[in-house]
Amino acid sequence: MTAEYQYRRLDKNDAAMLLVDHQSGLISLVQDFSPGEFKNNVLATAACGKYFGLPTILTTSFEEGPNGPLVPELIETFPDAPYIARPGNINAWDNEDFVNAVKATGKKQLIIAGVVTEVCVAFPALSAIEEGYEVFVITDASGTFNEVTRHSAWLRMQQSGVQLMNWFAMAGELHRDWRNDIEGLGALFSQHIPNYRNLMTSYAARQ
Amino acid sequence: MTAEYQYRRLDKNDAAMLLVDHQSGLISLVQDFSPGEFKNNVLATAACGKYFGLPTILTTSFEEGPNGPLVPELIETFPDAPYIARPGNINAWDNEDFVNAVKATGKKQLIIAGVVTEVCVAFPALSAIEEGYEVFVITDASGTFNEVTRHSAWLRMQQSGVQLMNWFAMAGELHRDWRNDIEGLGALFSQHIPNYRNLMTSYAARQ
Amino acid sequence: MTAEYQYRRLDKNDAAMLLVDHQSGLISLVQDFSPGEFKNNVLATAACGKYFGLPTILTTSFEEGPNGPLVPELIETFPDAPYIARPGNINAWDNEDFVNAVKATGKKQLIIAGVVTEVCVAFPALSAIEEGYEVFVITDASGTFNEVTRHSAWLRMQQSGVQLMNWFAMAGELHRDWRNDIEGLGALFSQHIPNYRNLMTSYAARQ
Amino acid sequence: MTAEYQYRRLDKNDAAMLLVDHQSGLISLVQDFSPGEFKNNVLATAACGKYFGLPTILTTSFEEGPNGPLVPELIETFPDAPYIARPGNINAWDNEDFVNAVKATGKKQLIIAGVVTEVCVAFPALSAIEEGYEVFVITDASGTFNEVTRHSAWLRMQQSGVQLMNWFAMAGELHRDWRNDIEGLGALFSQHIPNYRNLMTSYAARQ
Amino acid sequence: MTAEYQYRRLDKNDAAMLLVDHQSGLISLVQDFSPGEFKNNVLATAACGKYFGLPTILTTSFEEGPNGPLVPELIETFPDAPYIARPGNINAWDNEDFVNAVKATGKKQLIIAGVVTEVCVAFPALSAIEEGYEVFVITDASGTFNEVTRHSAWLRMQQSGVQLMNWFAMAGELHRDWRNDIEGLGALFSQHIPNYRNLMTSYAARQ
Amino acid sequence: MTAEYQYRRLDKNDAAMLLVDHQSGLISLVQDFSPGEFKNNVLATAACGKYFGLPTILTTSFEEGPNGPLVPELIETFPDAPYIARPGNINAWDNEDFVNAVKATGKKQLIIAGVVTEVCVAFPALSAIEEGYEVFVITDASGTFNEVTRHSAWLRMQQSGVQLMNWFAMAGELHRDWRNDIEGLGALFSQHIPNYRNLMTSYAARQ
Amino acid sequence: MTAEYQYRRLDKNDAAMLLVDHQSGLISLVQDFSPGEFKNNVLATAACGKYFGLPTILTTSFEEGPNGPLVPELIETFPDAPYIARPGNINAWDNEDFVNAVKATGKKQLIIAGVVTEVCVAFPALSAIEEGYEVFVITDASGTFNEVTRHSAWLRMQQSGVQLMNWFAMAGELHRDWRNDIEGLGALFSQHIPNYRNLMTSYAARQ
Amino acid sequence: MTAEYQYRRLDKNDAAMLLVDHQSGLISLVQDFSPGEFKNNVLATAACGKYFGLPTILTTSFEEGPNGPLVPELIETFPDAPYIARPGNINAWDNEDFVNAVKATGKKQLIIAGVVTEVCVAFPALSAIEEGYEVFVITDASGTFNEVTRHSAWLRMQQSGVQLMNWFAMAGELHRDWRNDIEGLGALFSQHIPNYRNLMTSYAARQ
Repeated sequence: MTAEYQYRRLDKNDAAMLLVDHQSGLISLVQDFSPGEFKNNVLATAACGKYFGLPTILTTSFEEGPNGPLVPELIETFPDAPYIARPGNINAWDNEDFVNAVKATGKKQLIIAGVVTEVCVAFPALSAIEEGYEVFVITDASGTFNEVTRHSAWLRMQQSGVQLMNWFAMAGELHRDWRNDIEGLGALFSQHIPNYRNLMTSYAARQ
Repeated sequence: MTAEYQYRRLDKNDAAMLLVDHQSGLISLVQDFSPGEFKNNVLATAACGKYFGLPTILTTSFEEGPNGPLVPELIETFPDAPYIARPGNINAWDNEDFVNAVKATGKKQLIIAGVVTEVCVAFPALSAIEEGYEVFVITDASGTFNEVTRHSAWLRMQQSGVQLMNWFAMAGELHRDWRNDIEGLGALFSQHIPNYRNLMTSYAARQ
Repeated sequence: MTAEYQYRRLDKNDAAMLLVDHQSGLISLVQDFSPGEFKNNVLATAACGKYFGLPTILTTSFEEGPNGPLVPELIETFPDAPYIARPGNINAWDNEDFVNAVKATGKKQLIIAGVVTEVCVAFPALSAIEEGYEVFVITDASGTFNEVTRHSAWLRMQQSGVQLMNWFAMAGELHRDWRNDIEGLGALFSQHIPNYRNLMTSYAARQ
Repeated sequence: MTAEYQYRRLDKNDAAMLLVDHQSGLISLVQDFSPGEFKNNVLATAACGKYFGLPTILTTSFEEGPNGPLVPELIETFPDAPYIARPGNINAWDNEDFVNAVKATGKKQLIIAGVVTEVCVAFPALSAIEEGYEVFVITDASGTFNEVTRHSAWLRMQQSGVQLMNWFAMAGELHRDWRNDIEGLGALFSQHIPNYRNLMTSYAARQ
Repeated sequence: MTAEYQYRRLDKNDAAMLLVDHQSGLISLVQDFSPGEFKNNVLATAACGKYFGLPTILTTSFEEGPNGPLVPELIETFPDAPYIARPGNINAWDNEDFVNAVKATGKKQLIIAGVVTEVCVAFPALSAIEEGYEVFVITDASGTFNEVTRHSAWLRMQQSGVQLMNWFAMAGELHRDWRNDIEGLGALFSQHIPNYRNLMTSYAARQ
Repeated sequence: MTAEYQYRRLDKNDAAMLLVDHQSGLISLVQDFSPGEFKNNVLATAACGKYFGLPTILTTSFEEGPNGPLVPELIETFPDAPYIARPGNINAWDNEDFVNAVKATGKKQLIIAGVVTEVCVAFPALSAIEEGYEVFVITDASGTFNEVTRHSAWLRMQQSGVQLMNWFAMAGELHRDWRNDIEGLGALFSQHIPNYRNLMTSYAARQ
Repeated sequence: MTAEYQYRRLDKNDAAMLLVDHQSGLISLVQDFSPGEFKNNVLATAACGKYFGLPTILTTSFEEGPNGPLVPELIETFPDAPYIARPGNINAWDNEDFVNAVKATGKKQLIIAGVVTEVCVAFPALSAIEEGYEVFVITDASGTFNEVTRHSAWLRMQQSGVQLMNWFAMAGELHRDWRNDIEGLGALFSQHIPNYRNLMTSYAARQ
Repeated sequence: MTAEYQYRRLDKNDAAMLLVDHQSGLISLVQDFSPGEFKNNVLATAACGKYFGLPTILTTSFEEGPNGPLVPELIETFPDAPYIARPGNINAWDNEDFVNAVKATGKKQLIIAGVVTEVCVAFPALSAIEEGYEVFVITDASGTFNEVTRHSAWLRMQQSGVQLMNWFAMAGELHRDWRNDIEGLGALFSQHIPNYRNLMTSYAARQ
């Protein structure tokens, strides 16, 4: 595998972000993260999308029904993003508007997070791989019922060529070099990684 | 892997379901799920098979002995399904009647669940892969002694091309679009996912 | 402690059951049990209350709001039970109607379960102990945010004299002797303990 | 508590052992230990009873039905022990024959183990405390459905004065001094504690 | 214990809050909670102190050194609170200024949280019990190295009469009745309990 | 992967068993299994080797030193097996005598178990894969320091084509059909799987 | 309990330390801590004994046999401590020399740690409580087979008045005030608490 | 995979070691290991690098800021190693000096460990694979926020051909044969594996 391997790494100029079904009802089904951890991971992922200026697409499933509306923080973060309220397609990639929105970004790398992992994330991830996209699933901003269902979904996606990473790895791979901007990314980390903030607090106190 | 990848996804018109050795004695050996979780997952899987009209095959191993009879709920769900009481074959695929029943379905996708994961599920799954079938193992309706044995079996199956998924992912991949039927699948989810039912209860109260 | 210890054991003629705030919204906050396990435990507890003919009191908190309505299964199980929709009291014991309903049962043993453990269960449990009642908290039909909050609540209640037990222990202590009725309690166990049902299935097959 | 505390420690001349409902069916309900660990703990406890010559009482519940017969190893270990097949009493202490057998031992310390912890163990333990016995529950030879039910039962028993200990502590407290017999107890430990056996194997190889 | 038990419950008119050593360096030692969970719990506890208008005392240990400064959010929440930077006392109760500040509140109930649990929390908690105060330790806003050290500390405190509770139980016990103020406490819960916020989001969408 | 996949399954006529470094000292380093579970798994694996008549090779590392002698049960099970006490090679495959013994079996499938997983098992497993053997590692008869080291080793071996399985799967794949011999394998399972024995006990009681 | 409670806190002028059976063979039985954690905790406890100048007593059980010798670090730390190699007493308190050595210290507070928790620690702890000593068990420097045996032992000791604490709490309670000596205790913490050392490293770098 | 598989095993003559960002601040973010375990693993890895004479490269990220300085033990171990304090590159492989230092070693096998796993380790690992190096990641000397982020990173690296191993496997694969040097490696193991040291202590006592 070594000889022909190409490290397909995230490039902020060639990546789009797809946030799938982070709705108030569906999120309450998530139990493989504590609710507080999960909320933080989702908001940190979104904050990265905004920070790096990635074209971002929001989509929901049946938001009028028990699944509930998209969590308001995501709408506030991306007020102008394409927003596809799917009328029934479970796999977002089966929705023409969604695929068109993806294609309209002109990017070939797709960052995907959503609820629940094995359906709302895995299905479009595998469809996108089949279409030739490079797919990166943000594992800690994607939640499901329990660790068994998560682990099954991860192994299925890994098997198909999806790259699994947490939001912090995504941020690092997109940023490449701290010299591009220390303040901005530092503030984002400080907001979402309490112990990183503690390091900064201690550091500032000693300056 | 990206270039040539084909997303082999479940198609309700091309899938059959194989339920292997869910017998009252064998199930009592399962300890990688709580008994209540496991029962629910098995019955939900079966309910999906019935709901989507998948040809389903039941099989047992030594049901006259300590392994015990098939759990009655499965017989009630599939009263007319082929039922192969294997006289001794450990791998169901070694049983000619079983393979003939599979072939008679005319399907090329096989959904497999059973007890115990590393034997009754993994063996026919690998045999079927060798025969050219697309194989989907329902991980949360397949149980075994502990997490070590489960994890070994999953890695062996993943290595061989088996797709691992939980019953909820199977349901979503088979259904494709809620507009095909909201009531029916909603009822099935409400029956087997208590927090989904809670969402529906809250929703109904506010209508 | 030995010399003066009195084993205060549940007596079906002297016990009432209090089910506190098992509402569709609040239950979705419970994460120290899987949703399936918790639902089964709550329904098994209720089934015991009905089976043993215990006077049972239902109560809810703000059911018109996000907490949601009482789960329908409990209303179906106890259609004639006193039902106190508390207008604001967090501790049910602060509600005069609730306390009157408890007193009206004429029982001195109180079996309590509810959501969430450290508030809706612990508060009335401690109030009742202060009033001289013998209090039994059904730990597996009472849920909360995580194991830390559960464990804190258990230690506080143990410290105050509350007796902690699971629903199965409650059933056994109330029944005392299988000869009182084998069929009925056996059916209840079979319904709520899958491996017990498996034992019965295997047994029946060999008769 | 310090001033008046009396260390009630096990005395092989004043202790009896009660093994409650270790039946083949009931044991299959135990999930707070792996089956292998649990079997080893039960057999080690029994081996200690025999080794120290403690009067031992066996009892079962409904052994003709799905609960199944007492595991054969216990009968082989204690072929002459009183054996009370209870016709229906859930709490063994409610069975007159059982209590008479206990009293006939003339001991004031009772060592109890059984299945399941919160019923078959806790109920007679609390009854015996009320009667003035000193009660020691062997926690690792007593099994139940899961850790929640175990922990509830432990806190209830601790609250009532029951002393909780594992079989190894029981053995040490009964033996008091290795000089009483090195060979015998060493063999017992070697049989039931694999790493202790490993120490002995290494030691022997270097002599 | 039943007869004489008095339920000492939190009363917002008789309680003070002591936040001990939540410093940027010390918090990075906490590993029995994820950093995100812990931060949320500490801030929620503080928010309750402010919301209920409890006299609150801040204290730190060696804040000029590696322990680091108090986390800035606490200073912002309580800009006018007594702030005792202890020059060396490990047990805050050994510091005369601290004890005087406590006494100056005139309250007899003390709510304590801090880092690390077994030292900065347990020591003043036990000292305060000895002085006749009623002490409530907020277990989920108090952190330590691992679960072993936490559990030891909890058992020692429980043994001494400290009441253990999480911040949510504290909030409920202080508030007593939602009719006192729905908006304010609801906002606080919404801020710190993501799934509660989700319930409110779903509810609002359906109004 | 599907098209060309060949299910290389264990064949009792083409498999040899390699037991590597199950020495009394080294085994005491194993902490990813409880000692009792691990001992049982190792002895069950050995019992299968004997039952199926597989050529078996024993090897040790520095058995004169602190690693200690091979556990006596393995010597008793395989008194006539080739026994290579390696003078220094860490990877058994680097030892010419060992490789010669493997080649002398004439088998192309190798079943490997040992202590510790990532060294004594993984090294010869990868060497054997390179030599063209089909390699099956018995995961639950191979132990190491903790789950992190185990999981790393499993992923490395999976990546290289090693098939991971537990001893029970090995037994089933070797046996193929219960009709080959019910008594013998049943006895082996009864000896090493307590809940299977319980099933048989219950079954026998009802015949 | 509040009214009469006396906070018996460790006083370096009134405490002795008893290290029981930390022998090379017995320690290899410990599995409720990773070996690295446990070694660190034991050495940190010993370092505190030396640092605070506590009279310390070493004792072993059968050190000539498989239990092995006392770990050399403890002998190096306390070369002049009374060293009682018990010829057979399991409970060290049953050994006259040991009790005499304890009495000779003239202290009324005893700090105990050892292997295994439920025997070598719990037995002398309970004996000492009975004799009127104040007993403090260092929970993280006392190891046993698994968490079940540990938890049983803790509940038994808590029930009897033993105070459970980790070594860090012991250090803090003995030291009382950092002004007594910053350098010495800081060095000890730096040696045994890696993240504390990291804080100091960061701090020093910024001075 | 079998036919063409080449076992690329570590060769001490062809391997270099890269230690990435083990800085005092960053290490305090690590929570997938206890701090004590992690420190030991890092120091053991470094000790192996020194012992086997591997060319070793140290690198840091923003060491002047909150990330803190490299931990002093690594500087002491490798006083003459190339030390690249990266001014901003997140992926060390993006730093020309670093890559030049790697190339200057002339080795084609790279052993990598660092903090945090999914960034500081995974990024250069994947870059190096792309460049044709054989890459070995030391999993237990690489830390991150939690098990979810670790597991994602492992699956991504495994997918790309990185070989995952713990430090003990690295040591064994590099050493090949104990006869090369028993004393030296034995001392290293004794220093970093407490139970191995215990084996040696027991062994020495019996010589």
